[in-house]
Amino acid sequence: MFHHSSKLQYQVRVDKPDPIFAKHLQQAIGGIEGEIRVAMQYFFQAMGARGNPKYRDMLMMTATEELSHIEFLGHAVALNLEGAPVTTQEMAAQDPVVNAILGGTNPRHILSSGLSAMPVNSNGVPFDMSHVYATGNLGADMLANATAEAGGRVLASRLYNMTDDAGMKDMLSFLIARDTMHQQQWLAVIEELGGMEGQLPIPNSTPQEHENTEHSYYFLNTSLDEPTPEGRWTKGKSLDGRGEFSIKEKPEPMGQNPDLGKARPGTGTQMEQQK
Amino acid sequence: MFHHSSKLQYQVRVDKPDPIFAKHLQQAIGGIEGEIRVAMQYFFQAMGARGNPKYRDMLMMTATEELSHIEFLGHAVALNLEGAPVTTQEMAAQDPVVNAILGGTNPRHILSSGLSAMPVNSNGVPFDMSHVYATGNLGADMLANATAEAGGRVLASRLYNMTDDAGMKDMLSFLIARDTMHQQQWLAVIEELGGMEGQLPIPNSTPQEHENTEHSYYFLNTSLDEPTPEGRWTKGKSLDGRGEFSIKEKPEPMGQNPDLGKARPGTGTQMEQQK
Amino acid sequence: MFHHSSKLQYQVRVDKPDPIFAKHLQQAIGGIEGEIRVAMQYFFQAMGARGNPKYRDMLMMTATEELSHIEFLGHAVALNLEGAPVTTQEMAAQDPVVNAILGGTNPRHILSSGLSAMPVNSNGVPFDMSHVYATGNLGADMLANATAEAGGRVLASRLYNMTDDAGMKDMLSFLIARDTMHQQQWLAVIEELGGMEGQLPIPNSTPQEHENTEHSYYFLNTSLDEPTPEGRWTKGKSLDGRGEFSIKEKPEPMGQNPDLGKARPGTGTQMEQQK
Amino acid sequence: MFHHSSKLQYQVRVDKPDPIFAKHLQQAIGGIEGEIRVAMQYFFQAMGARGNPKYRDMLMMTATEELSHIEFLGHAVALNLEGAPVTTQEMAAQDPVVNAILGGTNPRHILSSGLSAMPVNSNGVPFDMSHVYATGNLGADMLANATAEAGGRVLASRLYNMTDDAGMKDMLSFLIARDTMHQQQWLAVIEELGGMEGQLPIPNSTPQEHENTEHSYYFLNTSLDEPTPEGRWTKGKSLDGRGEFSIKEKPEPMGQNPDLGKARPGTGTQMEQQK
Amino acid sequence: MFHHSSKLQYQVRVDKPDPIFAKHLQQAIGGIEGEIRVAMQYFFQAMGARGNPKYRDMLMMTATEELSHIEFLGHAVALNLEGAPVTTQEMAAQDPVVNAILGGTNPRHILSSGLSAMPVNSNGVPFDMSHVYATGNLGADMLANATAEAGGRVLASRLYNMTDDAGMKDMLSFLIARDTMHQQQWLAVIEELGGMEGQLPIPNSTPQEHENTEHSYYFLNTSLDEPTPEGRWTKGKSLDGRGEFSIKEKPEPMGQNPDLGKARPGTGTQMEQQK
Amino acid sequence: MFHHSSKLQYQVRVDKPDPIFAKHLQQAIGGIEGEIRVAMQYFFQAMGARGNPKYRDMLMMTATEELSHIEFLGHAVALNLEGAPVTTQEMAAQDPVVNAILGGTNPRHILSSGLSAMPVNSNGVPFDMSHVYATGNLGADMLANATAEAGGRVLASRLYNMTDDAGMKDMLSFLIARDTMHQQQWLAVIEELGGMEGQLPIPNSTPQEHENTEHSYYFLNTSLDEPTPEGRWTKGKSLDGRGEFSIKEKPEPMGQNPDLGKARPGTGTQMEQQK
Repeated sequence: MFHHSSKLQYQVRVDKPDPIFAKHLQQAIGGIEGEIRVAMQYFFQAMGARGNPKYRDMLMMTATEELSHIEFLGHAVALNLEGAPVTTQEMAAQDPVVNAILGGTNPRHILSSGLSAMPVNSNGVPFDMSHVYATGNLGADMLANATAEAGGRVLASRLYNMTDDAGMKDMLSFLIARDTMHQQQWLAVIEELGGMEGQLPIPNSTPQEHENTEHSYYFLNTSLDEPTPEGRWTKGKSLDGRGEFSIKEKPEPMGQNPDLGKARPGTGTQMEQQK
Repeated sequence: MFHHSSKLQYQVRVDKPDPIFAKHLQQAIGGIEGEIRVAMQYFFQAMGARGNPKYRDMLMMTATEELSHIEFLGHAVALNLEGAPVTTQEMAAQDPVVNAILGGTNPRHILSSGLSAMPVNSNGVPFDMSHVYATGNLGADMLANATAEAGGRVLASRLYNMTDDAGMKDMLSFLIARDTMHQQQWLAVIEELGGMEGQLPIPNSTPQEHENTEHSYYFLNTSLDEPTPEGRWTKGKSLDGRGEFSIKEKPEPMGQNPDLGKARPGTGTQMEQQK
Repeated sequence: MFHHSSKLQYQVRVDKPDPIFAKHLQQAIGGIEGEIRVAMQYFFQAMGARGNPKYRDMLMMTATEELSHIEFLGHAVALNLEGAPVTTQEMAAQDPVVNAILGGTNPRHILSSGLSAMPVNSNGVPFDMSHVYATGNLGADMLANATAEAGGRVLASRLYNMTDDAGMKDMLSFLIARDTMHQQQWLAVIEELGGMEGQLPIPNSTPQEHENTEHSYYFLNTSLDEPTPEGRWTKGKSLDGRGEFSIKEKPEPMGQNPDLGKARPGTGTQMEQQK
Repeated sequence: MFHHSSKLQYQVRVDKPDPIFAKHLQQAIGGIEGEIRVAMQYFFQAMGARGNPKYRDMLMMTATEELSHIEFLGHAVALNLEGAPVTTQEMAAQDPVVNAILGGTNPRHILSSGLSAMPVNSNGVPFDMSHVYATGNLGADMLANATAEAGGRVLASRLYNMTDDAGMKDMLSFLIARDTMHQQQWLAVIEELGGMEGQLPIPNSTPQEHENTEHSYYFLNTSLDEPTPEGRWTKGKSLDGRGEFSIKEKPEPMGQNPDLGKARPGTGTQMEQQK
Repeated sequence: MFHHSSKLQYQVRVDKPDPIFAKHLQQAIGGIEGEIRVAMQYFFQAMGARGNPKYRDMLMMTATEELSHIEFLGHAVALNLEGAPVTTQEMAAQDPVVNAILGGTNPRHILSSGLSAMPVNSNGVPFDMSHVYATGNLGADMLANATAEAGGRVLASRLYNMTDDAGMKDMLSFLIARDTMHQQQWLAVIEELGGMEGQLPIPNSTPQEHENTEHSYYFLNTSLDEPTPEGRWTKGKSLDGRGEFSIKEKPEPMGQNPDLGKARPGTGTQMEQQK
Repeated sequence: MFHHSSKLQYQVRVDKPDPIFAKHLQQAIGGIEGEIRVAMQYFFQAMGARGNPKYRDMLMMTATEELSHIEFLGHAVALNLEGAPVTTQEMAAQDPVVNAILGGTNPRHILSSGLSAMPVNSNGVPFDMSHVYATGNLGADMLANATAEAGGRVLASRLYNMTDDAGMKDMLSFLIARDTMHQQQWLAVIEELGGMEGQLPIPNSTPQEHENTEHSYYFLNTSLDEPTPEGRWTKGKSLDGRGEFSIKEKPEPMGQNPDLGKARPGTGTQMEQQK
């Protein structure tokens, strides 16, 4: 069950409201790299966690933290929108260049939300929950979470670079720090369970006989004119310790020439396809 | 530039067409765990790859392979749909229980595609390209790719369990094998670049002073009644080698009580909010 | 800031797992009538609440409650999925009619989530955040919230009718009760602020001179052959106390015949449109 | 059956074409607060209306009116786009600041629609029909309709404030007026049917024994540190006349600690989850 | 301006309600081949029609007809849903096989719409307005419309084959007929304007010097192992009368090896990409 | 099976990087008129092609070409983004008007993709695969493809007009040329199969008795006040050679007054609807 306390997890200060930066910050709320995504992803993973219950707890605790991130980011957006002109008089009172810059704001911050945060990204596209990755497989989910936090920290760093508001920089430096931890905590689960050698290939419970292992460890060079880019993935023991990496170049098709024959009557096709 | 040869990458055989399994297979084509996603993800990452060009080549080669996976899966769907009844006479000729099972097929496989594969998942929801994760950051992208392949192999294993058609099992055992390789090849890039210690936190180019490092290495227990789930993430050196994991329990909010004050006139709010 | 306690807000018991009912329950999680929607709607309204701060508090408190509803519903879905057959052997062990019924389950409950809840509706369509209605206008938002809760209670009642599992009925009778309260609490805000007479028309701050009031109080009968359906809306004082309802039948267009003239060169139109 | 007359329902005049305002106006066509939504919402509600047929008629008549609103708004968008520069020569002929402002237009108004209205919102996001709320329950639908019209009038007022084109202001003052009426006409249905006391809780046909009424009338304070925001919803008779409002503070969870145990073999989970 | 008469454009009779067929019929309402799409497509094309005003009239008249098609199809869906069981008692009263078939219905027809039509397709996916194709170019729009009607008649024929309800067959035979006309009326516009020779290439107003005509008339064989499929498109005068068709086999790339070099500092990339 | 060669199909040169033009170019990648759409559309049509196999080959060859178009357009976007300012220092170094123009860029080109192409349109809306039109009917698919290429050439022409970069103009003149060919090659299939007379109405395999031919050849004038727009579609032999065009004016409804009667108990409706 969830509870709430009235203060924000972290201090939010906006020295100079900037409605364009408000638009940019939306990416950290409703973007695929944003906080709604991770909050919901960890929440749904927790609800489906089978096996050792400590992973469920871990997921739910961080889901709860991410909800608090949405909250302070939402406040940051609203503060950046304070003072955005909402009438033609207010617009006229501003410098034409500033006015031009306003063309770069999200119009729905005025028209739809009345100067408040929205669950959308920096293009105004609403977040959709298909981005909540929760497979029921602990290994796949941990990688998905590390990915989400990597994207999140990349985003926070880019936002940091794009503002010179001291309050915003301070808030983003907190987010950058938490994303550092969150990247590592999910990968630490994999390390604890035996590292890549123990966890790969995911799912590690697939019986060996379900896999055509002759195709499991070669890098396929599908290029007609490029040499194989060599590296850790083309030689040496595979990361799961079960095979040896190799290279397969200029592969020949192993399958048939696909052919579906004629269309049946009654299928709504052209007559010519049925003959 | 792309080229094509007329045979499939791998042999597709369907011993007993099964339109419900055709619906299930769609998840491997148009699901978030499917082949359109990885083909497009590696393609867009390749087009944006900066730095050592061998990663671009690697991405483009595997993108090309994934296009071939879409192709043979699409053929598998069409073969499973062969013989699905399309008229009431054909339906009536079938056993009522079989008929009932048909209620479980994707109606658009008859109505919209005429017994062919579609770029949709097993619920009939079209794939959308927001799932193409390509950040321009090599580390984030490699994790995203390993995640995608982990989800893909989980899916292929589940599909394998749900059919007893020998041809389909054979095709899926090939996919399971390729997903094994693909999981590892992306993680091998990280290993080659110094492993987690070298690559974390992502982006590893963020200047230290942009991060409020006091918050970078503690696990936050946001639960009111649960002890912290302990593990690799709560003690010991952090995976990036820069810090020491610790625990922060029952955290107090560090921020203010958010307050936006009154609404301004002209904002389309109720009068009571402006007073 | 959010916190969590480990127990569910309400007891969840499933006497006889039913994967089809699991699919139906998803509507209460990820449907437009579901709990993700209200949790996020009240959360975003709270973050944008201007004016009397007690409405912000009220919104945030109920947002927090709705998060707890997602949590126990998610558990209910997972419990209903326990025992769903995931291999052909398990399927074969079941009665063919039961097996046929399984055609009615959400395939992604096996393929994608591994027998866990997903943030999707009963068609498997992911929830998208465009359904978070938060205008910054207190009156509009209160109506939106009462609407959401009305839809929610309609849904919970329909789900109640479709199961005879005692545990599920008990859980739904709790949801039905909370939806009763939530419908009323949002409408009670309107009552407290002077009722419909005080709050209508929304926004009540729009200056009278921005409204062409000659068109504000007639019901427009656009039918060519039906008499006006008469009722409270066709006669008597308007609900905002500012006008008198009336009827306008068989209205004549008041505007011009629209005409855009020729297309300009350089607009990518056919030549014939430019002449 | 529908018919059409060639003139617009209301006069549209644009004194000074403004392609940025065209982008803003799109919110009134294809936004969730816009006319496509209400036209389709009333249309689908009408098609599903059971009970007294006068409500069906009422819904269909207003659906028809809203179609006419789309029509004149679409003309207004096209007129505002007249004269937008479509070639680099035309762009160069303009003032650089004006040019900069053009960065704020919707590029698809040139690239995709050729200077015409589109069924998208002011971010260019297409309207999707999931926003057509039609439950089959008259009470829920009337609230949904009043909500839609409240959002619509808020939007029209905000648009009014953002233009100083006399023609556009005139057109918007008509829309503001019709939204006034439409808000009231749907709420008048509820009043006619006995008001909130008669219609709440929606659905009012749910048998009392389906509701755990012990939880029906308290406001739940889920905050750890805030006093309950008191008001009409915390004391006095409930709006449905069936109960008495009260407060429940610092609620304890009533449910169990959720636990799904181990994962089954064959579910595509990691081995560690199955042990 | 739109008007309405109370009777349906065409008689709707359902002899034996069939909730699965109701689900299928939804494709004709809210599918990409359905009536909402064409109604809105012709409506938006009409609003943007520049040039000879008779095309605007034609578009608006048929848009209006399509609205009437939505209306009678919506009634057909509701009639097919009459009698669908909504309680466990009603379900139990039915034959288990029939019951199994019910697994194939759209659950939201009970849960969300209360036995009424919805603006969704046969998978329950809501229609979205990105499918309204309106380019402002008359030729492109006429092809888009003929395409939509071709898809529509294919769908109606498939639906016809899947029902043996005489009333439904009668209604569909009307739709099949109107789709026949509509396919032709849009193509007749092209014929009237000089046929393919006059209208191609679309847009026919693009200046010749904007086109690298050396690449305008060859069919590109990108296959490594297949001979060119020969036909009308590989030899003879081109359909626009401006060129001669030819074949280009095994094409060599004409462009460079793409290279983006190093990533800049400050771009949120990994350090290794910046060196 | 697919293969790749490392060079681009066509040379890409950007003389003066322009991040706003990068945003515009996205329409040609991820817009409904763009290359992802046609690549995937031809690919899925090929996989479902029944009948003469040469059409399958033709579709697959052109699908392969379109993949190469995505590739060089993606490079063009990345080159146009080179030099876009990513830090406040870089922004400050620029002219304020230029800076203002930057408000018109896609913020996700910096925040999400790190200066690379994305599978989105010029509004930043991701492409979704519902736009892949593949009906299994050759005639319908050929029209859909000609439509897609018409939209594509309209778009390429508009983009050509909006840039004065010589490199971009050169690349677009190649695209304009290939779209010329592609429009024609699909229509040439129809010509080869007997032209409109042979292919219409689509599907031409629908038995005559499934069509209520009395309604197949009249243009329906649904306007109350406009004369019928006359043309090729109102008189003369129909394009399929089977009928004679005519006009039907001021049509009377042929159907009944729809009536669904009362709602059943247990349907979650208001009590008043059940009486």
